[in-house]
Amino acid sequence: MRAYDVILKKRNGGELTSEEIGFMVNGYVEDRIPDYQMSALAMAIYFQGLNERETTDLTRFMVESGDQVDLSGIQGFKADKHSTGGVGDKTTLVLAPLVAAAGVKVAKMSGRGLGHTGGTLDKLQSIPGFSVEFTPQEFVDIVNRVGVAVVGQTGNLVPADKKLYALRDVTATVDSLPLIASSVMSKKIAAGADAILLDVKVGSGAFMKRLEDAVALARLMVNIGSRLGRNTRAVITNMDQPLGRSVGNALEVREAIETLQGRGPEDLTELCLILGGHMLHQAGRCKVPEEGKKYLEKLLDRGDGLAKLKEMIAAQKGLPEVVHNLELLPQAPCQEEFRSPAEGVVEKINAEAVGLAAMILGAGRETKESSIDLSAGIVLHKKVGDAVAKDEVLAVLHSSERWRIEAAREKLREAYIISNQEVKPQPLIYEVISEEN
Amino acid sequence: MRAYDVILKKRNGGELTSEEIGFMVNGYVEDRIPDYQMSALAMAIYFQGLNERETTDLTRFMVESGDQVDLSGIQGFKADKHSTGGVGDKTTLVLAPLVAAAGVKVAKMSGRGLGHTGGTLDKLQSIPGFSVEFTPQEFVDIVNRVGVAVVGQTGNLVPADKKLYALRDVTATVDSLPLIASSVMSKKIAAGADAILLDVKVGSGAFMKRLEDAVALARLMVNIGSRLGRNTRAVITNMDQPLGRSVGNALEVREAIETLQGRGPEDLTELCLILGGHMLHQAGRCKVPEEGKKYLEKLLDRGDGLAKLKEMIAAQKGLPEVVHNLELLPQAPCQEEFRSPAEGVVEKINAEAVGLAAMILGAGRETKESSIDLSAGIVLHKKVGDAVAKDEVLAVLHSSERWRIEAAREKLREAYIISNQEVKPQPLIYEVISEEN
Repeated sequence: MRAYDVILKKRNGGELTSEEIGFMVNGYVEDRIPDYQMSALAMAIYFQGLNERETTDLTRFMVESGDQVDLSGIQGFKADKHSTGGVGDKTTLVLAPLVAAAGVKVAKMSGRGLGHTGGTLDKLQSIPGFSVEFTPQEFVDIVNRVGVAVVGQTGNLVPADKKLYALRDVTATVDSLPLIASSVMSKKIAAGADAILLDVKVGSGAFMKRLEDAVALARLMVNIGSRLGRNTRAVITNMDQPLGRSVGNALEVREAIETLQGRGPEDLTELCLILGGHMLHQAGRCKVPEEGKKYLEKLLDRGDGLAKLKEMIAAQKGLPEVVHNLELLPQAPCQEEFRSPAEGVVEKINAEAVGLAAMILGAGRETKESSIDLSAGIVLHKKVGDAVAKDEVLAVLHSSERWRIEAAREKLREAYIISNQEVKPQPLIYEVISEEN
Repeated sequence: MRAYDVILKKRNGGELTSEEIGFMVNGYVEDRIPDYQMSALAMAIYFQGLNERETTDLTRFMVESGDQVDLSGIQGFKADKHSTGGVGDKTTLVLAPLVAAAGVKVAKMSGRGLGHTGGTLDKLQSIPGFSVEFTPQEFVDIVNRVGVAVVGQTGNLVPADKKLYALRDVTATVDSLPLIASSVMSKKIAAGADAILLDVKVGSGAFMKRLEDAVALARLMVNIGSRLGRNTRAVITNMDQPLGRSVGNALEVREAIETLQGRGPEDLTELCLILGGHMLHQAGRCKVPEEGKKYLEKLLDRGDGLAKLKEMIAAQKGLPEVVHNLELLPQAPCQEEFRSPAEGVVEKINAEAVGLAAMILGAGRETKESSIDLSAGIVLHKKVGDAVAKDEVLAVLHSSERWRIEAAREKLREAYIISNQEVKPQPLIYEVISEEN
């Protein structure tokens, strides 16, 4: 077999066999196939696509290219959740302890991504003392004891995806549906859970800007998961404005704790309950997701989610008192208000612009080497549909460096659109894609 | 400027600016842009194309990436001819001396290609003593004195094309019209002639199998040449069966000499006269190409073309007597007849299969390192439309090694199709594309 022939076949619109896909993935990881042939194939795939069978094979060979997380030492049903990424998305911080409080195991091994804010690991590390470095055995022990753990990756998970993603990133071949789906699903499959719930974001702050694209991606990922023997489901959710009110690492932890205290923003609380209901349903704990949601509402009201988060923080060497005393979280020395230029109603908050403003404030990582200002970020006082007076506070900007605030203010000015029109409320959830449909 | 943005723009169907094209070509030649980005761009171009302006810019930056042949020391009008390649195509060997005999200068610097037979340089080197290695000054001197020379390349001509072609060759991005056109034209522009005549072959033995593709390629190349200030014209010619009767290096030199002696195959003679008429017309030597053709017929009849070839051979250190004594050319020790399996009419001779048979006999180069058997090849005794009896000789196979003949015979069996139907004569010339149309 020759890489040339595989590229040619895909370029001409042919369907690649399992052998051909395995040959390319393995050859690439083992440096037998050079970057320039793989990038030509990626571009051919961008134009000609991969069908579901090809995408599943690609995912499978990527999973098999490296280590897989072994969760067999954990008793009970292991559920996992993945978000395609959005601005202010701290659902894992709420959802993981809440679902664990319901008796479903949540064993998350996360990578560190680039983005407007840090990833879940960075957010958690704004809790004093919190560690994400554990051996696989310690990880399993914590989950068995507490029911939930969120730690950094150990082992060489999905090296094919790491190498291919880095190549796609510099050859304009990232935004291909089958390549995105196989990249996400290979990591989720390798993470070892029994069930996978995908939170596929759509809107101005998400990778997918159009609902139909999000639905297509969700359906493809659900079918890949299903073909590879995992109970997989996707919920398509709104990311036209940031989720909740806080964007930034410590600020998001604060909001997650407030949510588990029962006083979080409505959209975040509702989304976590809905997603959690699906996870309980996937775990066979209820007949319909709605029933699971109701149960989680009860746990939330009783404070069981907060108690579980406290246990997890303690198990991971963090300061558990933080869940009762938010002042223990890092606070930015510079905090400045951002005021409305006009009277009216908030018509839109461009989530991507808010994310970029948070990045400017120091909350995110531009390159793998960048360090993060854990205290930096934005708190939105007004969200879409809220009435505002002229000069009323729309948001507060947090940073360690004053010069960043001026630059971020410019971005935030682009983000907020104040108008006189009536604003229709946006749906929180668009669609649920499960294996059956 | 970033290579990523240029790839993305082309992938999305945008038109690249001159600056963007120059940035990619120069960056690639100077190793600042890696192979994997260039191959992604080539694949994006395969799908999205380049318009005429972009293709011209690509050609120009490739020309400017290296040395250009300086023909300014040659007095008079310098004409050049390029064939897109076919089986049994020895037109240059006839045309160059014939046109030079008419007073138009032909200064050809050729590279050595891969192919079913060697290139023009290999063919000429089957003449005992013939040399293709001359300094630029010697080359200019020979052309000034004799009117014609065909030598090997000196200097670093079009390094961008060399590097890009090698990459395209392993990434399934060769057969893109704008990439083919810019590759051919960059070499022709760098070769320095005042006028360029393109012989664009179409048919089973050519790169272009369909007339419309050949016309599109020809039109694009003519327009590029014209935009870059060269008088450029293309003639679309038939390559459904081999040209003339001989395929192989020494065999083709023999046939070229016979043609200049006035006893060559009709198709080859006619094609050379037509192409030559256009070259004379481009040089301003006649009002219409037909007039130039008539003049060349007269020169051919008088033996002026043969005399000019003899002068050129002498100037390039070869044995001039070869033009009167064909026995001085290398002869294959093994010569075997290939006979017709049936009675009927030759309906088709697949030129590509004949070329492969010649390659098997040793006439071509599979890799740059392969050596060529100059005596090897095939002489076709029957061509399309000829009536044959069962067991009549269709062709004679020539090689230095007997085992090759058996293998080549298999290929030749595929090439000849004998039927009982009447065979319509094929046109020799399909179309002429000049700057005006």
